[in-house]
Amino acid sequence: MGTVYLDLLSQPCRAVHILLSCTGIPHTVRTVALRKGNEFTKLNPMQKVPVMVDNGFVLTESDAILKYLVTRYDVPEHWYPRQPERRARVDEYTAWHHSNTRPHAARVFILEVLLPAQSGSPVDEVRLNRALSELDVSLDRLETAFLRRQPFLCGDDITVADLLAVCELMQPLGGGRDVLQRRPELQRWRSRVQTAVGESFDRAHAVLYAVRERRSAKL
Amino acid sequence: MGTVYLDLLSQPCRAVHILLSCTGIPHTVRTVALRKGNEFTKLNPMQKVPVMVDNGFVLTESDAILKYLVTRYDVPEHWYPRQPERRARVDEYTAWHHSNTRPHAARVFILEVLLPAQSGSPVDEVRLNRALSELDVSLDRLETAFLRRQPFLCGDDITVADLLAVCELMQPLGGGRDVLQRRPELQRWRSRVQTAVGESFDRAHAVLYAVRERRSAKL
Repeated sequence: MGTVYLDLLSQPCRAVHILLSCTGIPHTVRTVALRKGNEFTKLNPMQKVPVMVDNGFVLTESDAILKYLVTRYDVPEHWYPRQPERRARVDEYTAWHHSNTRPHAARVFILEVLLPAQSGSPVDEVRLNRALSELDVSLDRLETAFLRRQPFLCGDDITVADLLAVCELMQPLGGGRDVLQRRPELQRWRSRVQTAVGESFDRAHAVLYAVRERRSAKL
Repeated sequence: MGTVYLDLLSQPCRAVHILLSCTGIPHTVRTVALRKGNEFTKLNPMQKVPVMVDNGFVLTESDAILKYLVTRYDVPEHWYPRQPERRARVDEYTAWHHSNTRPHAARVFILEVLLPAQSGSPVDEVRLNRALSELDVSLDRLETAFLRRQPFLCGDDITVADLLAVCELMQPLGGGRDVLQRRPELQRWRSRVQTAVGESFDRAHAVLYAVRERRSAKL
């Protein structure tokens, strides 16, 4: 495989990093400093990450990159099953993810970490509480619909859907908040994902863990 | 094929309706009155449409339903190409769609039609203008990235991506607003989509056209 441009503080970038790393697809990682004009800006004028370049084929959107990689390269089929009903379950989750898990978990991190760091103002507690309530609705749905009677979001084995979901739900940890703290069922799912991908989980999250450490040292 | 539960005032439902109708996949449409408890509520406690039931397999999310249908049934391959790079282009658009075209076009309709109808209050012009600006960013991107040098969003032929996009961009027409009015390139694309799917386009949009008529009769 070619090159992926990633910022490991970005949730979808970590999902791509974990897949590449735990399946052993050969690849080069280029870390992107988004604010600087560089080679990356030419590839992707929108300056969004991740971006994949595979033999000249440039692809954006983590969801599409993950599905392309597991189709193009020789990785275990469970990541994105070929059987139409099982594959449809993955597509169902990923479509739902974009309007639920992703914006809701991201907003908690933005309100609690990014905006206060940029503006120097304290956390807006009213907006944060609203964001946490919205996230709760998504967490309920993950438990009662997707994880009902099965160990992973889309069935008996791990898929790219679990990677996208877990990387979003880890993000608020950068602000010291574990959003799964009172959710034993989701905690067990997260542990199953961690076990399935091994060390690649912590490697992808090292930058996020460092953000958490720096913040807790300051407090 | 089995049964689809649709509300044709919902954009993603129309995309599913057009695909089924213009490819000739045999199916039954059940129209859903979302506010009433019924058979549909049991299938989908979240009361979201569309829902597909195919030989007992229940699937939500239009994106997943469209991709499942073209995989499971014998329809021309251009709808969702099998070649990995071409398929990745469709997955790239649909992932982007959920955070861009869909929320931005939907918000214009909500602010201009739904909220005033529910509350009896006039349109909030400040929020409407902000929504229109956000939609403009998505429309720019459709022109300069997806439709650059190709007639359809993901290549030389129509795919499920075009259906999802066109149905969202038609929605503000329910309030009398054609968001493509000053966008000749996007207008030509919409015409190409209409030509490709034939009469199924207007059949799917009949309910939306009726909303527009009723509103213009009142004014």
